[in-house]
Amino acid sequence: MPLYPDPVQGFVIEAESLRAWTDALVRRVGTPGDIAGDVAEILVAADLRGIASHGTARLPQYLNLVEAEVMDPAARPAMETGKTALARFDARNGWGHHAGRVATEAAIERAKDTGVAISVLRNANHYGIAGWYAMRVAREGLIGLSMTNTSPVAAPTRARVSMIGTNPIAFAAPAGRFGMLVLDMATSAVPRGRIEVAQRRGETLPVGWAIAPDGSPATQPQVALEGSLLPLGGKEETGGYKGYGLALVVEVLTGILSNAAFGPNIVGLFSTAGPSDLGQLFMAIDPGAIDERVAFSARLERLLDQLTRAPLIPNAPGPVLYPGQPEAERAEKQARDGIVIDREHHDSLVELGQRYGVAFPAARRRE
Amino acid sequence: MPLYPDPVQGFVIEAESLRAWTDALVRRVGTPGDIAGDVAEILVAADLRGIASHGTARLPQYLNLVEAEVMDPAARPAMETGKTALARFDARNGWGHHAGRVATEAAIERAKDTGVAISVLRNANHYGIAGWYAMRVAREGLIGLSMTNTSPVAAPTRARVSMIGTNPIAFAAPAGRFGMLVLDMATSAVPRGRIEVAQRRGETLPVGWAIAPDGSPATQPQVALEGSLLPLGGKEETGGYKGYGLALVVEVLTGILSNAAFGPNIVGLFSTAGPSDLGQLFMAIDPGAIDERVAFSARLERLLDQLTRAPLIPNAPGPVLYPGQPEAERAEKQARDGIVIDREHHDSLVELGQRYGVAFPAARRRE
Repeated sequence: MPLYPDPVQGFVIEAESLRAWTDALVRRVGTPGDIAGDVAEILVAADLRGIASHGTARLPQYLNLVEAEVMDPAARPAMETGKTALARFDARNGWGHHAGRVATEAAIERAKDTGVAISVLRNANHYGIAGWYAMRVAREGLIGLSMTNTSPVAAPTRARVSMIGTNPIAFAAPAGRFGMLVLDMATSAVPRGRIEVAQRRGETLPVGWAIAPDGSPATQPQVALEGSLLPLGGKEETGGYKGYGLALVVEVLTGILSNAAFGPNIVGLFSTAGPSDLGQLFMAIDPGAIDERVAFSARLERLLDQLTRAPLIPNAPGPVLYPGQPEAERAEKQARDGIVIDREHHDSLVELGQRYGVAFPAARRRE
Repeated sequence: MPLYPDPVQGFVIEAESLRAWTDALVRRVGTPGDIAGDVAEILVAADLRGIASHGTARLPQYLNLVEAEVMDPAARPAMETGKTALARFDARNGWGHHAGRVATEAAIERAKDTGVAISVLRNANHYGIAGWYAMRVAREGLIGLSMTNTSPVAAPTRARVSMIGTNPIAFAAPAGRFGMLVLDMATSAVPRGRIEVAQRRGETLPVGWAIAPDGSPATQPQVALEGSLLPLGGKEETGGYKGYGLALVVEVLTGILSNAAFGPNIVGLFSTAGPSDLGQLFMAIDPGAIDERVAFSARLERLLDQLTRAPLIPNAPGPVLYPGQPEAERAEKQARDGIVIDREHHDSLVELGQRYGVAFPAARRRE
């Protein structure tokens, strides 16, 4: 997931205020307290890490689904079937964040017995940043993996229409003094939310991110949103078939495996035309099944130590980073100094607070 | 893995002749018959699929390791430790192809009980195409995944030296009338073998594949081989950090997890300076644990049917493909008409046959 630069003009709000307000707002529309707590925690985690496209900015869209009775705010996931190390849950079309946490924790518990375990979810909804679920596993000292399919917004290599989702892959592992290695990436060149942020901020797009409805390159966000994203790697000549292939791996392990909707058949994530019926996968691998867990993380620490001290190319913008490092640094800073949100994001939450009678807390203006 | 175009000048040899000769040659250097059978099958499978960089063209390098007593041709892998669904094997520095097959089949057997199972290998060697192991799983109706670390030939984003391998990811799933979906890709922009083939064929390289030792773009194969490959996505500006991140995911799940060598510490795969001590992962997921297996492959068949009939971009070179389709078509053709190999490849095998007293079978010249 892209780390967005701070908006030039925006507002600053304390993380705890944003979390408490989100929790209250989500409860106001009929969400039980524990489920609301999961939603608030995971959305604010995205804002803290600088993933503006996947945090509280999505609240108007989520609440729209609840109001239209397309999503059930009180639904709880249920285990349907499975064997020792692979279980399928029905998310029952409830909040994606809560179902994802439940499925993740089930995989963690089983992996501690078996060495590896997978939970898949069907009838699921948008669950925020995929990275949160992988990090939840890594916090236990295990290796975590999460994937979700999404509604079709990307074009397969050679096609001019959207038939696959941004289908993100998230991976996390405990890394000693480096905290965690966290990779959280769309298998499209960029996630759709990145284009929406560019639109909000009046930016143009580089070639290779998206195509227009006629298949030509799209550099205006509006044209890109009407057209299709390209897979990671861009066009066929630049290796886009690898991103397309990775998107299909995610599709097979989520929608196809869990018997959810898949590919071109998924209703838009935030459309009120009907439930999206997403498929999601959560995996936990316990290094402790074959070694001491601390020996595993010590080896990863050593690798990251070697990588981050590598000699640099000419004009490198900084040292070699490890995946998740910029997001972790942003989260640490924003937990201390407050979360920076742009004006449209701020105003949409103020309006939501007015509509539901849960006043949005005062935020500091940032010039 | 890239599918190489047929060489302009080359030779044609029947697949069965090439397999039988490889088997005899490998036995001649002290390899037990069953192990030699695995080596021959997996190398010829690469040649059949058109992956010239990973098939019998590697035999001179493998035999060099055996002659130098750096690799033990008679070693058999041994299970060391594990729990129900995660096991670690010591490959004991034997043929990578045999150890990989044994570890894969162990994962298949356990996954049929538990739903998902992983085997990891340490003290392993180069195992040919990662895709073979994933396809071995898919032939059973299960979903297969395989990864290996390799010696450091790629530069992390911002670094000018090689610190990570090409670290391929292979994934396969049964897909009804489409056979299998098979993704087999290096997480570097291209595998090193692709550069070696370009060198053999006198081609130049596009920018984004590799850098020279000083960090500048390398367009000559020789300069690229002295320098470093770039991760999938190329430079930082074009998303190379995603390829770098994927390479690290593979490193964590192979070298770090299995307690093998990792990253910059791996001895060159074909260097006689010492064993490579590679780490590898083999995973099997049984859709039958949560559904009918045939229902799973029917859904994947439907997805591929939808994708391959998508409307095309202007000037598309052909219809939308699914991962593994060009390789499967090439394998079918070459199983029927013979395998095309280039002159250097052919001549190196003839020479090897002379040296070990196992005459290379007559091959048809192709103008």
